[in-house]
Amino acid sequence: MSSPLDAILRPKSVAVVGASARQNSLSYQILHNLIEYGFTGLIYPVNPKAQVLHSMKCYSSVAAIPEPVDLAILVVPRDAVLEAVDDCGRKGVKGLVVITAGFKETGPEGAKLEAELKQKLGIYGMRMVGPNCMGVINTDPDCRLDATFSPTFPLDGNAAFVSQSGALGVVILNLAREVNLGLSYFISMGNKTDTSGNDFLEYWAEDPRTNLILMYLESFGNPRKFVQITRALTKQKPILVVKSGRTVAGARAAVSHTGALAGTDVLIDAMLDQCGVIRAGSVEELFDLGIAFAKNPLPEGNRVAVLTNAGGPAILATDALVGHGLKMASLLPETTRRLKQRLPAEAAVINPVDMLPAGDAPMYEYASDLLLRDPGVDSLVVVFVPPLMVHAMDVARAVESVRRRYAKPMVGVFMAPEEFRAELRQAMPDHMPMYPFPEAAARGLAALERYRHWRAKPLGQVRHFHLNRERVATVFERVRAAGRAQLHLDEAFAVAEACGIPLARYKVCHSAEAAEKAAAEIGLPVALKIASGDVVHKTEAGGVALGLATAEQVTRAYAGMVRQAHHKLAPPGGEGRVIVQAMVPGGLAPHSAGRETILGVTADPHYGPVLMFGLGGIFVETLRDVVFRMVPITDADADEMIRQIRGHALLEGVRGQPPVAFGILRESLERLSQLVAEFPEIVEVDINPFFASPDPQMCRAVDVRIRINL
Amino acid sequence: MSSPLDAILRPKSVAVVGASARQNSLSYQILHNLIEYGFTGLIYPVNPKAQVLHSMKCYSSVAAIPEPVDLAILVVPRDAVLEAVDDCGRKGVKGLVVITAGFKETGPEGAKLEAELKQKLGIYGMRMVGPNCMGVINTDPDCRLDATFSPTFPLDGNAAFVSQSGALGVVILNLAREVNLGLSYFISMGNKTDTSGNDFLEYWAEDPRTNLILMYLESFGNPRKFVQITRALTKQKPILVVKSGRTVAGARAAVSHTGALAGTDVLIDAMLDQCGVIRAGSVEELFDLGIAFAKNPLPEGNRVAVLTNAGGPAILATDALVGHGLKMASLLPETTRRLKQRLPAEAAVINPVDMLPAGDAPMYEYASDLLLRDPGVDSLVVVFVPPLMVHAMDVARAVESVRRRYAKPMVGVFMAPEEFRAELRQAMPDHMPMYPFPEAAARGLAALERYRHWRAKPLGQVRHFHLNRERVATVFERVRAAGRAQLHLDEAFAVAEACGIPLARYKVCHSAEAAEKAAAEIGLPVALKIASGDVVHKTEAGGVALGLATAEQVTRAYAGMVRQAHHKLAPPGGEGRVIVQAMVPGGLAPHSAGRETILGVTADPHYGPVLMFGLGGIFVETLRDVVFRMVPITDADADEMIRQIRGHALLEGVRGQPPVAFGILRESLERLSQLVAEFPEIVEVDINPFFASPDPQMCRAVDVRIRINL
Repeated sequence: MSSPLDAILRPKSVAVVGASARQNSLSYQILHNLIEYGFTGLIYPVNPKAQVLHSMKCYSSVAAIPEPVDLAILVVPRDAVLEAVDDCGRKGVKGLVVITAGFKETGPEGAKLEAELKQKLGIYGMRMVGPNCMGVINTDPDCRLDATFSPTFPLDGNAAFVSQSGALGVVILNLAREVNLGLSYFISMGNKTDTSGNDFLEYWAEDPRTNLILMYLESFGNPRKFVQITRALTKQKPILVVKSGRTVAGARAAVSHTGALAGTDVLIDAMLDQCGVIRAGSVEELFDLGIAFAKNPLPEGNRVAVLTNAGGPAILATDALVGHGLKMASLLPETTRRLKQRLPAEAAVINPVDMLPAGDAPMYEYASDLLLRDPGVDSLVVVFVPPLMVHAMDVARAVESVRRRYAKPMVGVFMAPEEFRAELRQAMPDHMPMYPFPEAAARGLAALERYRHWRAKPLGQVRHFHLNRERVATVFERVRAAGRAQLHLDEAFAVAEACGIPLARYKVCHSAEAAEKAAAEIGLPVALKIASGDVVHKTEAGGVALGLATAEQVTRAYAGMVRQAHHKLAPPGGEGRVIVQAMVPGGLAPHSAGRETILGVTADPHYGPVLMFGLGGIFVETLRDVVFRMVPITDADADEMIRQIRGHALLEGVRGQPPVAFGILRESLERLSQLVAEFPEIVEVDINPFFASPDPQMCRAVDVRIRINL
Repeated sequence: MSSPLDAILRPKSVAVVGASARQNSLSYQILHNLIEYGFTGLIYPVNPKAQVLHSMKCYSSVAAIPEPVDLAILVVPRDAVLEAVDDCGRKGVKGLVVITAGFKETGPEGAKLEAELKQKLGIYGMRMVGPNCMGVINTDPDCRLDATFSPTFPLDGNAAFVSQSGALGVVILNLAREVNLGLSYFISMGNKTDTSGNDFLEYWAEDPRTNLILMYLESFGNPRKFVQITRALTKQKPILVVKSGRTVAGARAAVSHTGALAGTDVLIDAMLDQCGVIRAGSVEELFDLGIAFAKNPLPEGNRVAVLTNAGGPAILATDALVGHGLKMASLLPETTRRLKQRLPAEAAVINPVDMLPAGDAPMYEYASDLLLRDPGVDSLVVVFVPPLMVHAMDVARAVESVRRRYAKPMVGVFMAPEEFRAELRQAMPDHMPMYPFPEAAARGLAALERYRHWRAKPLGQVRHFHLNRERVATVFERVRAAGRAQLHLDEAFAVAEACGIPLARYKVCHSAEAAEKAAAEIGLPVALKIASGDVVHKTEAGGVALGLATAEQVTRAYAGMVRQAHHKLAPPGGEGRVIVQAMVPGGLAPHSAGRETILGVTADPHYGPVLMFGLGGIFVETLRDVVFRMVPITDADADEMIRQIRGHALLEGVRGQPPVAFGILRESLERLSQLVAEFPEIVEVDINPFFASPDPQMCRAVDVRIRINL
């Protein structure tokens, strides 16, 4: 494998530009870390004002270094950065890590400087991490690069970590050390001017030392590329993400239901879910899950055994495991029998297996071996609360020896004082994931199981349908020509039809006579709707009349509509079109022919178009029972969307009612996904209500709203 | 204040019965703790086999002690416990703490022994903690009683802690020490044979040293008494509870919707909520909340400021605070102006206030003072990530000095290595609540705010209505006489009517002619329902006919019903009653006259009757949009129940639809509450659907199912 990022991540030689002799300075600490951690290549301090630094010859410039330089770490003052980049560029340096801050994070002036910096990268063909970052680490014994100012060295291991926050970077390295999580790489990305999360994901996809990726992100620079990379990569390597900034209010003003419900954080959840990326709610949880992945194989099922010496924590563990959807394993009679042979008479030999305070190290060893051997047990939680006579380290050693014999996940909940954790860290760095509380252990095991599911689950296919593209394009052209963003109802119907979404039968009419004729053709009762204006305004302005049962009612409604509503709604000089539509008996009641659902799209300016499905009609606003997926969706995604709403049972049918024609619903979602993928000018779609019915012929959209970019 | 529990919790003299010289034994550790912690009274070791223990005269029996003994700690073998109790009883000892295990937790033999033990308490007029416990602690300087085998001594303070798990007791005392949570009392309750949580709550209600109560519970011995005590006590002192055993499957087989939805854990949530008791999801969270309460005044509002030296953690803090419903404070212009005077030019002087890594101890002091002084700030989160040049302890000291000047909550998120926490513990035991992660800090502040709300909220009144008690009693007698538990429909209607719940107009008929006449009186269309059998069976057996629009349809339906359904449903020899009922146009659609709700009751054998309210009809099963309250409810409870369902907006009215007559709904809930409070034989009630309508006259129950105890 060879990548332009190698210059940054696997350099043979490193220059520290702006190296200083002043202790407690960032540059001093970086040079110190490079040396102390034992970088396997050559280090060149660069500082025109010094001759020697850290007992090494100090160069006045990068150009003055006689040998080639792969990577330069810039720790110069902000206003010296561009000059230093030129110095590096002329030397042929291909990798930069810019620690220096004061760029776009400080305002327009800094942003301008950052743009100039980026331009220079292009000129010299360099890649860069930063600026405003805390550096990079590669723990490969062949490289041993710690180009950060972190006071803690990482343990080496197989988890790659990337952080968008420098300050959290320091915290992360401390935490990784405290829980003995070994890292392959650590990267503090800073302002992500040149390289970002996606670049490192691609790099680590190919890296044999990395089998787990942890990310702290504050933004997605290119969410669509992130989706594309991770959807494939997560099938090989688990990716755990903390995405902060959940509550930053979106500036987008949404007029559709779909838009109103699709908060940015909801979109991110949907996106990560769809990519098999596991989202942790906090940095703490990221580590809880991270150690579970780093130190365990995947389970083969969801059946967990708990081994304990105390009842209370075992109850808490059971609560948490079952709460996460895991199952308490049923033990084989043979396991129970053999446990009885050795455990105290009062011990509980069902699951949780409670050995009481008498449970000492040999008993933990014996019982954990029996439990892991039991084919009905997929993973094991070992709980230990120190009684007076039993030492936590002895128990840890005993169960650790058993763990190595089985390819099953095992996690520890050792509720011992801090000193134990420090001792364990020293004595047995390769220990099982160790949690101070049962809830965190359960979270870890649950994430393993969830990931196993993701790996096993077919992604499905993005199916392709025949859409009448010309008809859609023609409508959009006409709307744009009229200077409108919002489609009239008949236009929206035309687009839906061209997309293959079934609609309640309708006719566009320009006269009372035509309306009467259309009503007779369609069959009474019918609805009359004025074509212009949106639904809410239409209703208020008298532009909608429902349940017209006679020809006379149709004529009268037509006249009233044209008289009252038209001048309020139609654009000046616009034509007065009225739509006659078949009434679809709806609602969610068992006797309804159709159950109201909504199919929607909203295009986030940053994340792109998102599909929504949920209970429709008035339920959208009130129950908010909806799910989202990024476009394009696969057939499997469509199926999952329909299953995931709370009200799914209503679609399956209650009280003997037959299920709706799910095939039509699925295909309509897929077609809508294809439509917005092919027509990126679509900003919002609400198909609401879409009546889902047991009879495929009765599955019909009644109202469609579409908004496009002008 | 004086209480029988004083003998246990404030003794003047203590005998340790079963004291041993063997180190690492429980009794050795207890004697050691009593002495080392500095018990202010007299200690008497009791052991017939020793002369001296811990340099103290050892007595052969409690009776042999010349002076009076208030409390005896029993650490004798299980089979010697009863004899030791007799020894104590004869001496006039009034308090026992039985450490010894092997009682009801081990099976029937142990349970028998425990019953005998309990009997003896009555005979001698003693109170007891345990058996199977780890002892009790009172940190009052006047007493200083540590009668446990915990290796850690508590700090003294104002939080009382009671634990149902001995093993977790050790963990709890360690944790309290690690986070510097000072305790007034600690009690390990063991098997709760004589004293339980309720006793200690009552004791601490009157205790001036206790202003916060923390509980770890695995069961509620007397939930109704718990409700009664805590509903008043939480208005004075916050109570935080971890209740484990969430997932223990209830053995109760429920036939009603209400019963099916009221899982035990749901009931406990409802109960705690109703009592203002704050439930923590884990022991870890209990401490996160506990230190927030122990070390802070209550806030005066929900506006929080964040002060930080790093962006990432501040974003995480903002996410967590807003996620918990708190608000980011808007700073006064004056505050912003003065922050600008002193903070670096690139610092963010809006909230969160980010001083960048340049933020040192004096700057933290300056800024935190300004923020706490700002009247728009109700509480403050201080975030600190250690940069190279700034020491965490200096910052902690600086902000601590400011904290003491303001009566506002302040919490710290110091993301520093473990060593800092150890140093802080030593140097400044009285420090602010200190969290390693922002999410825990936000949880703490959110709990303070939630509790402030509870304190401010009127509990409301249990209103009394006139119920026709005789009519209800008569129906129940008749049902019981027939050997039935399930009421027939007409009987259930009669009870609902007697209770004052409005019903759709109906008549009970015994002939086709009567049915036809009733239909004419009520007004067509009508529904016909056979009186016997439950709804589901009735429908399947043809015992329900809806929307009968003509007299002929009524007559035909009656005949069919009697022919087809009756022999399947009516009890042998039972009379064949058919109910003619007005049709109520329903559904949740805007055009419906009534919106379907459910009012229900289920009586948990342990927790007593619980009221349920939610969306009714088929939505009960599918959307499960329901809330629960223990009976009796107040008017305020009824109001809250209606507001708390997700679908509340449907009742308020969407798209211009008027709100339902909430008064009728509230009163019906209150009346139902009174009914089940007055008739404890009621096991289950489902009033479903209850049509809630804007017109009070149209608010009507259509189906009522009631089951009683035989």
